[in-house]
Amino acid sequence: MININIFENYLKNNLPKAESFHPYFEKALAHMLLSGGKRFRPQLLLSVVDGIYPMFLQNAMPVALALEILHTYSLIHDDLPAMDNSPLRRGTPTIHTVWNDSTAILVGDGLNTLAFEIIAKAPLRDDIKVKLIRNLSESGGINGMVLGQAIDLQFEKTPISLDKLKFLHIHKTGKLIASALKMGAIITDKSNLEEPLWNLGIELGLLFQIQDDILDATSNELEAGKPVNWDGNKNSFVNLLGLHNAKIEADKYAIKIESNLNIFEENLKNSLKNILSQYLKRHNN
Amino acid sequence: MININIFENYLKNNLPKAESFHPYFEKALAHMLLSGGKRFRPQLLLSVVDGIYPMFLQNAMPVALALEILHTYSLIHDDLPAMDNSPLRRGTPTIHTVWNDSTAILVGDGLNTLAFEIIAKAPLRDDIKVKLIRNLSESGGINGMVLGQAIDLQFEKTPISLDKLKFLHIHKTGKLIASALKMGAIITDKSNLEEPLWNLGIELGLLFQIQDDILDATSNELEAGKPVNWDGNKNSFVNLLGLHNAKIEADKYAIKIESNLNIFEENLKNSLKNILSQYLKRHNN
Repeated sequence: MININIFENYLKNNLPKAESFHPYFEKALAHMLLSGGKRFRPQLLLSVVDGIYPMFLQNAMPVALALEILHTYSLIHDDLPAMDNSPLRRGTPTIHTVWNDSTAILVGDGLNTLAFEIIAKAPLRDDIKVKLIRNLSESGGINGMVLGQAIDLQFEKTPISLDKLKFLHIHKTGKLIASALKMGAIITDKSNLEEPLWNLGIELGLLFQIQDDILDATSNELEAGKPVNWDGNKNSFVNLLGLHNAKIEADKYAIKIESNLNIFEENLKNSLKNILSQYLKRHNN
Repeated sequence: MININIFENYLKNNLPKAESFHPYFEKALAHMLLSGGKRFRPQLLLSVVDGIYPMFLQNAMPVALALEILHTYSLIHDDLPAMDNSPLRRGTPTIHTVWNDSTAILVGDGLNTLAFEIIAKAPLRDDIKVKLIRNLSESGGINGMVLGQAIDLQFEKTPISLDKLKFLHIHKTGKLIASALKMGAIITDKSNLEEPLWNLGIELGLLFQIQDDILDATSNELEAGKPVNWDGNKNSFVNLLGLHNAKIEADKYAIKIESNLNIFEENLKNSLKNILSQYLKRHNN
């Protein structure tokens, strides 16, 4: 299993550099990158590479970093007062809280661009770098993460259908998770694995979201003693399906993902199982 | 000379697509791209290509579009209430005015990412695309445009030295202009022209800024009848050097740029002269 400390150290040794007479811009660039986080997307990417050609791991590091940087920029912008208005993220004061809104906007912008710069400079073949950049920009952009976030904000207070809720989450988080897995196949030049890994990632993204919604609902129910039906404030799988059916839906995805893992060769399958097993537990036995 | 209508039509036929049930996100993506603008950066890039290998012009179009899209995202974010708070740009209501701040943030984010997606998909060799992406991400990112904007905001009300003011403008606008010219050399595979074209762009960026400052100061002087010395509100070349010396400085750059154009072969020199001549006029005869 991937030792994520290796990635953590790589990140700490490769923080964004922007030397100038600006009193804190370089510090602000590193701020949210150093605020912890599970590094789940890098871990997925590196697990695929480790399961195919472990010797490619070193050259995959910058790509894993680029992915984490792109993800981090999206968190920084999501936390802005004009978006979710969060003073804290993972217990750390957000950039606009420590400094100001314009710094948070510019740090996010800079990290977005930096992700592509890092891939363009990675020690990989040019054709692989172009494929990676295509993939990451599609998953993170106007037909991926950015669109998902726009839809999420637009329908914050309007109920949407199950299909639309899935579309929302596939775009907001699923595609970047799928991209993490697919980029592992791109780096190791295993084009036949790109599609199955992408599909796995899309299902994984939905599973996570349903599980999140279930956790949200059950902890709310415990805390507030209130029912978990649609309350006019949140589009969630639990609000749309009810808690019982949401659990059944989550289990369906878990079973499907576990079975889909079997199409991969032993090493890749085990590498992915190691990192995913904790998410594949069933709600109903 | 490049007919910029050809680029304008290319842009209109290649507007960002983000089909979904979001009521206006796709429209918002196109909004500022369609608000006019001189298309100066695409024009520079295409002029270089036209002066070297006109037959490459068609394949250079997506790169010119990517450049304009990156520039446009920066304008959208600059206009945000947290930044310059501009309700209008080129007479068009800005995105946050028509819709809301979060849409303007997300449209900007999406266009930033889209610029790299477009280059990654351009009909060019992979090694050329990687070079273009490196160049654009460096010029537009945390050691380029984004850093310049951060410095500009940070020192909005604090006087800085001439060297720092030059650093600011080289980053805020110069590097993207230099990048436009250099990318023309990258597309046409003329690596020996990359450096001289880059240097030309940096000087051009400074010339534009000094000319802007002169225009600002002289129109203010005419309008308000007030002196043009440092007023505690704005770092400008006129405030730092005085109007007379700013004009001398502008002329120095104009003379240098005109003389540097002579190192290029006839076609490239003429192509650049055609687009630059209007900026190379002297203040003092």
